[in-house]
Amino acid sequence: MAVRDYFFKVKTPDEVRKISREIARPLPAEVIAIEVSIGRTLAEDIRSPVDLPGFDRAIMDGFAVRAQDTFGASSGSPMYLKLAGEVKVGEEASLKLSPGEAIRVSTGSMMPSGADAVVMVEYTDLLDDKTLEVVRSVAPGDYVVRRDEDFCRDEVMLHSGHVMRPQDVGALAGAGILSVKVSRQPRVAIISSGDEIIPPGDVPQIGQIRDINSYSLSCLTQRAGGIPIRMGIVRDDYESLRASLAAGMEKADIALISGGSSVGARDVTLDVIRSFDRAEILVHGISIRPGKPTIIAVVGDKYLFGLPGNPISVMVAFDLLVGFLMRLLSGVKQPAWEPRYIRAKLSRNIASAPGREDYICVRLTQSGSDMLAEPVLGKSALISMMVKADGLIKIPLDTEGLEEGTEVEVAIFA
Amino acid sequence: MAVRDYFFKVKTPDEVRKISREIARPLPAEVIAIEVSIGRTLAEDIRSPVDLPGFDRAIMDGFAVRAQDTFGASSGSPMYLKLAGEVKVGEEASLKLSPGEAIRVSTGSMMPSGADAVVMVEYTDLLDDKTLEVVRSVAPGDYVVRRDEDFCRDEVMLHSGHVMRPQDVGALAGAGILSVKVSRQPRVAIISSGDEIIPPGDVPQIGQIRDINSYSLSCLTQRAGGIPIRMGIVRDDYESLRASLAAGMEKADIALISGGSSVGARDVTLDVIRSFDRAEILVHGISIRPGKPTIIAVVGDKYLFGLPGNPISVMVAFDLLVGFLMRLLSGVKQPAWEPRYIRAKLSRNIASAPGREDYICVRLTQSGSDMLAEPVLGKSALISMMVKADGLIKIPLDTEGLEEGTEVEVAIFA
Repeated sequence: MAVRDYFFKVKTPDEVRKISREIARPLPAEVIAIEVSIGRTLAEDIRSPVDLPGFDRAIMDGFAVRAQDTFGASSGSPMYLKLAGEVKVGEEASLKLSPGEAIRVSTGSMMPSGADAVVMVEYTDLLDDKTLEVVRSVAPGDYVVRRDEDFCRDEVMLHSGHVMRPQDVGALAGAGILSVKVSRQPRVAIISSGDEIIPPGDVPQIGQIRDINSYSLSCLTQRAGGIPIRMGIVRDDYESLRASLAAGMEKADIALISGGSSVGARDVTLDVIRSFDRAEILVHGISIRPGKPTIIAVVGDKYLFGLPGNPISVMVAFDLLVGFLMRLLSGVKQPAWEPRYIRAKLSRNIASAPGREDYICVRLTQSGSDMLAEPVLGKSALISMMVKADGLIKIPLDTEGLEEGTEVEVAIFA
Repeated sequence: MAVRDYFFKVKTPDEVRKISREIARPLPAEVIAIEVSIGRTLAEDIRSPVDLPGFDRAIMDGFAVRAQDTFGASSGSPMYLKLAGEVKVGEEASLKLSPGEAIRVSTGSMMPSGADAVVMVEYTDLLDDKTLEVVRSVAPGDYVVRRDEDFCRDEVMLHSGHVMRPQDVGALAGAGILSVKVSRQPRVAIISSGDEIIPPGDVPQIGQIRDINSYSLSCLTQRAGGIPIRMGIVRDDYESLRASLAAGMEKADIALISGGSSVGARDVTLDVIRSFDRAEILVHGISIRPGKPTIIAVVGDKYLFGLPGNPISVMVAFDLLVGFLMRLLSGVKQPAWEPRYIRAKLSRNIASAPGREDYICVRLTQSGSDMLAEPVLGKSALISMMVKADGLIKIPLDTEGLEEGTEVEVAIFA
């Protein structure tokens, strides 16, 4: 019974993450327009060049007043103020408010100097063109945004490593910042290897199958913020694979070889990687299922992944390993949470061997007030399992399985 | 004390969703390449034109056998089979397996007829070039994928209303389907109104502010799967707004007018909408905060939203109302879950008036094993609140607030 040597070199997911952190060198930065910055990672802190909004601003329709002139006002005992003019939206407030006066403002108007609050129009009545009745008191600052209440000049608005969202783009526009420095997107060369693989547009002969992995990997790369470069299909021989990998490393930061699930093909992949100058194989085998036979290597400043050929294995390994490295290369400051997880109850027992992380496809169904995670069972060579599933659950390294009813976190396929 | 008439017409979020379902007409379909279909919504069921993988296929390196010939095999009591050849990956299996024989296969090889299982190479030993020792039994079907086990010919692979993911693209490629019929993306015209608003590239005079909402709305539209069309900034007067809205409806399916937070501006927006033929105002005021003064109308087959001017209100109203309508127009079959929610414990008490849904910005922090949701407090006119927050929590319609320690669901800003 032949037990191959690398079975003993299998690394845990934690060890692989540690290695990834050691090898990841941040990608260079580039300057882009804010309109196209969603999902991109900031390569520097951004400070506000101005106070925002830049002037004290009314945020309700009503009357600018000195708050103390309204103290004690109620419907039963109104206060009376002298109407001293109006500040229109978009205009400089040239009027100055004196004690006992009110100046009409709208939402967005600049506050006149001397005023420190706004009485909403609903709580006033204009008795004649000079006399305003006020039936509710206001505190200083009510319905007013101070000149630097949104952002102060020189305040850090967004930190390096932040991933841009719509509100961040809005805030930068508001501060007059129209471009940002972000990490360049990782370029990912995708090679599909296998003597039986043909392009999806071709008609398979008996024994051949159409390429699945180039397509799912290309979409996963895009979704993870990278630029996919499809290198096509290569046969499982040394020369073809070496030529394609050399071309891929020329064009990209990361090269993925999927396929090579047979031992022979895997050995060819290893030989090809070793044939490059400055090649170093860092990982060969990971204690995860599916995805165990994954290879990770560096060749100079390029990163290489030898991914298994099964469609499910390749997707699990991508998410866990390639996506993780891509975030490191982009300098993403990871949040404390994983936004893609939702909780559900397991619909049946699942067995697992201790010593490896198992990833199980599940479908989610609502059952009364509970969300149920129902394992989608089958072989990891079946892409249909991923199509029928809504997400994956992880069975941790040192667990022998999970019982029906256990609460699990489902990583949703987004 | 003037209480305006529309205070009495305020609708609940449920009523608004019901109205949205009634008015939404699905957008026409278009055919696109699978490579660019991620996030798009299928406009028809997709059936597999073929059996997948199309032939019985080995999924391990080893030997194709009749399972019954291995029954009882173990290290202590091996079975011996006659090696009758090899099927290489990508080739048609022309050999036929007879009882008592084994044929060498690799991962991906076609199974020879007569064989119904694969014995992994690890559990075999080749004694001479004709004799294979087998030390473990296999059951019929072990390490073999049947010719239609992934998808059967004519089986529905993906249903109409499904939102495309990487694995779906992979599966379609595998079945030789290179293009799909999807709903056209909603086009969304974005108008920023306000006499004080200037383009972000300009330098504000005192009393003016730079446009925030065009930028955040444009990014939100993209993120929700739509095509934003920025119509620029218009003054709060009838003629300007009408011209911009007419142009927007010409180009888009949905028109958004943000700004108009003052009562005067809101009245102009209403007058402009009413001036169009076949205009119908369906909603004017919603029991949410922020976002209450939102207007929803239809003009023929176009959808109009009058959104509040505050940066936070506009984003909450977009997510809740515009994003919801966009999904209806695209025919998205909603999943049973909301993937963007994560659970956390509230770090302090929050008050809320019953009779409205309150949306509160929160920041997430890890505290031991708990995730804490810490309210970001301030005025809804401040874009900085959204920038500093990680997500929103909802305080339901009939609740007077939430106590410290309550478990809440945080809708993450993705």
